Amino acid sequence: MPLRLDSAAPDFAGAFDLLVNARREADEDVSRDVAAIVARVRSEGDLAVRDYTQRFDRHDLDAGGWEIDRATRRAALDGLDNDLRAALELAAERITLYHASQRPADRDEIDAAGVRLGARWRPVDAAGLYVPGGRAAYPSSVLMNAIPAKAAGVGRLTMVTPTPSGEINPLVLAAAEIAGVDEVIRIGGAQAIAALAYGTDKVKAVDVIVGPGNAWVAEAKRQLFGVVGIDMVAGPSEIVVVADGANDPVWIAADLLSQAEHDPTSQSILFTDDAAFADAVAAEIEAQLARLATGVTARTAWEANGAIILVPTLDAALPLVDRLAPEHLELAVADPDALFDRVRHAGSAFLGRHTPEAVGDYVAGPNHVLPTGRRARFSSGLSVLDFMKRTSFIACTPASLRAIGPAAVALAHAEGLPAHAASVAVRL
Amino acid sequence: MPLRLDSAAPDFAGAFDLLVNARREADEDVSRDVAAIVARVRSEGDLAVRDYTQRFDRHDLDAGGWEIDRATRRAALDGLDNDLRAALELAAERITLYHASQRPADRDEIDAAGVRLGARWRPVDAAGLYVPGGRAAYPSSVLMNAIPAKAAGVGRLTMVTPTPSGEINPLVLAAAEIAGVDEVIRIGGAQAIAALAYGTDKVKAVDVIVGPGNAWVAEAKRQLFGVVGIDMVAGPSEIVVVADGANDPVWIAADLLSQAEHDPTSQSILFTDDAAFADAVAAEIEAQLARLATGVTARTAWEANGAIILVPTLDAALPLVDRLAPEHLELAVADPDALFDRVRHAGSAFLGRHTPEAVGDYVAGPNHVLPTGRRARFSSGLSVLDFMKRTSFIACTPASLRAIGPAAVALAHAEGLPAHAASVAVRL
Repeated sequence: MPLRLDSAAPDFAGAFDLLVNARREADEDVSRDVAAIVARVRSEGDLAVRDYTQRFDRHDLDAGGWEIDRATRRAALDGLDNDLRAALELAAERITLYHASQRPADRDEIDAAGVRLGARWRPVDAAGLYVPGGRAAYPSSVLMNAIPAKAAGVGRLTMVTPTPSGEINPLVLAAAEIAGVDEVIRIGGAQAIAALAYGTDKVKAVDVIVGPGNAWVAEAKRQLFGVVGIDMVAGPSEIVVVADGANDPVWIAADLLSQAEHDPTSQSILFTDDAAFADAVAAEIEAQLARLATGVTARTAWEANGAIILVPTLDAALPLVDRLAPEHLELAVADPDALFDRVRHAGSAFLGRHTPEAVGDYVAGPNHVLPTGRRARFSSGLSVLDFMKRTSFIACTPASLRAIGPAAVALAHAEGLPAHAASVAVRL
Repeated sequence: MPLRLDSAAPDFAGAFDLLVNARREADEDVSRDVAAIVARVRSEGDLAVRDYTQRFDRHDLDAGGWEIDRATRRAALDGLDNDLRAALELAAERITLYHASQRPADRDEIDAAGVRLGARWRPVDAAGLYVPGGRAAYPSSVLMNAIPAKAAGVGRLTMVTPTPSGEINPLVLAAAEIAGVDEVIRIGGAQAIAALAYGTDKVKAVDVIVGPGNAWVAEAKRQLFGVVGIDMVAGPSEIVVVADGANDPVWIAADLLSQAEHDPTSQSILFTDDAAFADAVAAEIEAQLARLATGVTARTAWEANGAIILVPTLDAALPLVDRLAPEHLELAVADPDALFDRVRHAGSAFLGRHTPEAVGDYVAGPNHVLPTGRRARFSSGLSVLDFMKRTSFIACTPASLRAIGPAAVALAHAEGLPAHAASVAVRL
């Protein structure tokens, strides 16, 4: 049974603390294995990549090919069912529109002292996109990771994906083709991340690496952070639904299960101010679980990590939501803005009764790569900013340097840096 | 002697590759020591922090105090020399103005399909600022790290700084007071980072940790990335100056030495199209080194890592500059914009003959915490964005869900996620 809490109960604070601090992320320590793989790829290059790929993926890169060529990718796209292709293209179009308007504006202004100050944004030269092999490879994730890079103006986008025993996922290839991925290389694991970061003869180095992966991939990205830019650390998916009793329990149950079906470690939490509605949703979840093809996973996640929390008013749920800082927050009420205005921490919000979270996973436009595990307290979903960087600039005239330079001279001397002081003073 | 290269020489490509790939960062492996400290602080809290502080800083926190109280910080500010105080206040005012206008705009719009889409930025609740003890503690760094947090609207800003044998740096305290730091705790090292990340009884947890530190501090931040947000990995400082023969060699020599005096691992590189000017700068550097109080450090850095590179035209230097992706780039020419327009990778640019890099270290306004070691290829200087995060949002009406929902249903089924499909389908 999922957790059932009442915020009016005397032991609520402690029980909610436990829920907030429950760790759903595996704490597998693969750091030493990953360090060894990274070091070997760095020193031996393709030889190491080929060897690891043979060993872990049972794919011979030299015999079976390093790249998946353009023709194969086009064929995967052409082989798609028409409806599915139209759906992927609609998704790509909407994601592109949303992300294109994330491009930040440059600044260039002259301030009161006469100093010209500004900042200029430019895309990185090349980005790498990791796509897992097998079950966890989703075409929607390819779109969500690749399109922001293209919208940022990245020159070369390299996708890496393991092809265990040579197996290729055609849906993923079709999505890569739609998103405009430039090259696809059949490598995975920590060795793929290391090859992208340092570059080898066969794999050109990139500047930023994004995309989900297993514990080895995540650890390799963490170890190579600083050699390249990386996206956020990803954990199990989660949803918090805040709903009043006027909702259809069938809809809300479906929303809670849409996250639960991802993985046994996924989390779904309902806040409501209506005890009868809470009961109705709980019963409806049981009914839907019984006929859901992914019911075994969803039941495991719901019973291990799910929760229904009764609050006296929905307003009272908001500080609790902020503590959870959920990846997905659904506000299923008639006036969602009144609640949303007071939410500080959430990856993405789904406003009103007609916005199921799943519409954001695929076609709404905003990114579905979002901070999990309370990381919305300090981080944001993937965006064009992950593929761009800013160069600030300063231009003084003789007069404006005379205005602000003496203060720089004073501070440099106070910090014991006389050459800093001299470089300003000689110009005054 | 520093390196002297001519881009027309037959062996230039190889020699420049060596310069680009030279590693100036110590590769000290402290990961296991740091992991042990982090784990102990996490499980034992203040007991562990007190013990490490006694051992590493010879400061007894319980007897000598955990916090540096407001009165002590005010007294440090009141005790400042008037000129120095005015210089710090001018710097703080200009840094505040520049960073306040970095605050990103929210979005809220309705698209062609009738879907409301947007994004909302909010500050993190609390931030931690690491300030080293001893020689590397600069009041200007306190301003540069603290002010963006305050400009972002962060509610609580906690500074941590080791006070070895009880010693406190009054300049640093005065800067903290000017910048509006909320509390100052006398701890340092990996134990301080762990305490800020996990929280203890005495040290409240924060959401983001910024600020420079030694190898232990840097490794602790890397290990705790994901538990909290962190800023970039910092390496030795560096400057690239692109200058024509019309410059005063005295000025350019001073600029090159202003980075060299930081640390023996600092790097200063001059690109020029005028061989006689190159000779004049080299000679002038020798002359200035002879009378510079920080001459020993500056000479070591200049001879080990410095370079003068002759190019046929300054335009020809730009692709080389992009490969170096320097922290600081000075374009000491009459028309710097013509060059700057073609630069893709630099942390900060200093345009024209009257903009010595040091003016940006202190008073210009843009941040002096900048990407080093070629990281300007993929990362940016510190900004208010490091202390804010974005919540995207989506709101469908029944009609707009009918417009885009079917595509989501199709994609969810294709990905084998029937509960995702159902959560949309039940509403159609």
